[in-house]
Amino acid sequence: MSKTTLVSLAESLGVSRQTVSNVINAPHRVKPETRMRVQHAIVESGYRPSAAARQLRTRRSMNFGIRMMPVVDGINGSILDRFLHALTEAAQEEGYRVTLFCADTDAGEIRQYEELLKVADLDGFVLTGTHHGDHRTAWLLEHGIPFAAFGRPWSSIEDPFGSLHPWVDVDGGAGTEQATRTLIEQGHTAVGFLGWPGGSGAGDDRRAGWARAMRAAKLPTDSLDIQADDGVPAGAQGAEQLASKGATAVVCASDSLALGALAKLRQLHPEQASPALIGFDDTPVAAAVGLSSVSQPTEDAARHIVAVLAHQLAGSSSPHGDEEPAPERHLLLPPTLIQRTPYSFSSST
Amino acid sequence: MSKTTLVSLAESLGVSRQTVSNVINAPHRVKPETRMRVQHAIVESGYRPSAAARQLRTRRSMNFGIRMMPVVDGINGSILDRFLHALTEAAQEEGYRVTLFCADTDAGEIRQYEELLKVADLDGFVLTGTHHGDHRTAWLLEHGIPFAAFGRPWSSIEDPFGSLHPWVDVDGGAGTEQATRTLIEQGHTAVGFLGWPGGSGAGDDRRAGWARAMRAAKLPTDSLDIQADDGVPAGAQGAEQLASKGATAVVCASDSLALGALAKLRQLHPEQASPALIGFDDTPVAAAVGLSSVSQPTEDAARHIVAVLAHQLAGSSSPHGDEEPAPERHLLLPPTLIQRTPYSFSSST
Repeated sequence: MSKTTLVSLAESLGVSRQTVSNVINAPHRVKPETRMRVQHAIVESGYRPSAAARQLRTRRSMNFGIRMMPVVDGINGSILDRFLHALTEAAQEEGYRVTLFCADTDAGEIRQYEELLKVADLDGFVLTGTHHGDHRTAWLLEHGIPFAAFGRPWSSIEDPFGSLHPWVDVDGGAGTEQATRTLIEQGHTAVGFLGWPGGSGAGDDRRAGWARAMRAAKLPTDSLDIQADDGVPAGAQGAEQLASKGATAVVCASDSLALGALAKLRQLHPEQASPALIGFDDTPVAAAVGLSSVSQPTEDAARHIVAVLAHQLAGSSSPHGDEEPAPERHLLLPPTLIQRTPYSFSSST
Repeated sequence: MSKTTLVSLAESLGVSRQTVSNVINAPHRVKPETRMRVQHAIVESGYRPSAAARQLRTRRSMNFGIRMMPVVDGINGSILDRFLHALTEAAQEEGYRVTLFCADTDAGEIRQYEELLKVADLDGFVLTGTHHGDHRTAWLLEHGIPFAAFGRPWSSIEDPFGSLHPWVDVDGGAGTEQATRTLIEQGHTAVGFLGWPGGSGAGDDRRAGWARAMRAAKLPTDSLDIQADDGVPAGAQGAEQLASKGATAVVCASDSLALGALAKLRQLHPEQASPALIGFDDTPVAAAVGLSSVSQPTEDAARHIVAVLAHQLAGSSSPHGDEEPAPERHLLLPPTLIQRTPYSFSSST
């Protein structure tokens, strides 16, 4: 790609080699101004750590690795199953296959990278489930392994759009904001939010979207923000709390929570066939029971991940082939609100 | 494994080479007595078609291929997603990974086998979705490619337990039989069956289980057997038909059908919070709405598939290593009936 090395980069910036390494592997150890200057230079120079190691490879295997995430409750996990279907299809259209592996933790996933790169000759990896303090991206950058993430980097000290690695994500906050706005437009002034405990990137983002819509309509959010563990029973409990605080409509961070809320709201208000309720992820369960939900464009995300990764791989084998426009390295896709009427109570089928 | 060839096998049986080939590739062209005699000899001799071709391979890739089946309604398809999770885990425990590919048809799947064997150096394949007239197994046998199927061979002219290739399946008929018996024991005498149109192996098997339980209890089945396309709306329609014919309980071939039936039965009988209704596959939707359902042991099935395939691969590289007992080549696993009370109407959460 270029003759930039960690050493030449450090020299040209007048910083130590260690500083450049820290920016890649432990950005919190570097002062913000220095970090941003080094990150900018890295991106500009096209430098890829350990690119030399990559050149030992003589052929491409046309195979990406992806960790099969464990099944959680089968409802929320279905979004990753859908992504995997879409990824396999998009990869195959570009001539790539997808190899699955398992790991219990991020550290286990990194051990699998090491082993798979030894035994399975993969071209790169697709990451899912990015979160605060994710060590996987630093490891892959350091080892010069091509990869792309479904999920933005959630570290609060980095601008995700300045990140060193490519990612695609869905703008969950825009989804809950639209969901909340829709309920407000229907006349609700007390729209509650039923989400996960603070600290998860995606969860906080969805909460923030709800809060933005409420603020924009000058509606109070006090006591309308419930933090619950995910799941159907927690959703029922949370909906009961929100109802007791006067909420007349609920936006949820997941369809599991929304499903519990649906059952509880019908129990509390048997006269209301269709509680004002919106879930997240548009899972098969939501479609089956007629629950409105925010839908993630998993097919678009998968296609873009494959395009970015394929471009990266083509770039590393043909350094001067710049004819095709590069796909966006950082892309936030808008979700869609799917509006439905709960099925079980419809007067006709 | 042995020096048996197609020619020596034909000679020892006093049949033509074409006859042996037909038994493998087009069994319907061979008279039943001859077919069974040849099948028996093939199994006994340990003959594997084109075994010589396999010996060209110098190393094992420790990688199985499996076709990613397309998403249908996201409810019934979830059983294959669950199987894929379990398969990836079971494979990894034995040192194998799983490579995914896509195909629209069986013929497309066979083209993928050809291509993957050229470019991806896979050790074998796992098949799902076996059905009447499945050409994939014949192709793999003919080409000597190790494989195992999740799903028995459904051809009506072959004894599945005499089949040339290993398979694991779940005894769906035993599941609907148990479901029906359970409803009869609860006092129902008119238990309807809501299943798919005749001709699908798995669907007919589930229908047969219901009919067995009804016959055993000397209950009439006339007009209580509804054939419907799969899906929630078809389930609602079918349940209405069954109710009009006096059915007081319903066993369904899928959770999609059961979910539609649940909505319709509640609409018809608002006083009944929990209609007598049992679905099939114990999908996340069933768990979420509290629907009773027949559960397939996907983890056991996946573990056994991996064991059979790993044994086959070890066998082909070390022909005399017979110390470990061979896993059953044909295994029908019993399902489990999961009994629940519909969630949405429970008086407390």
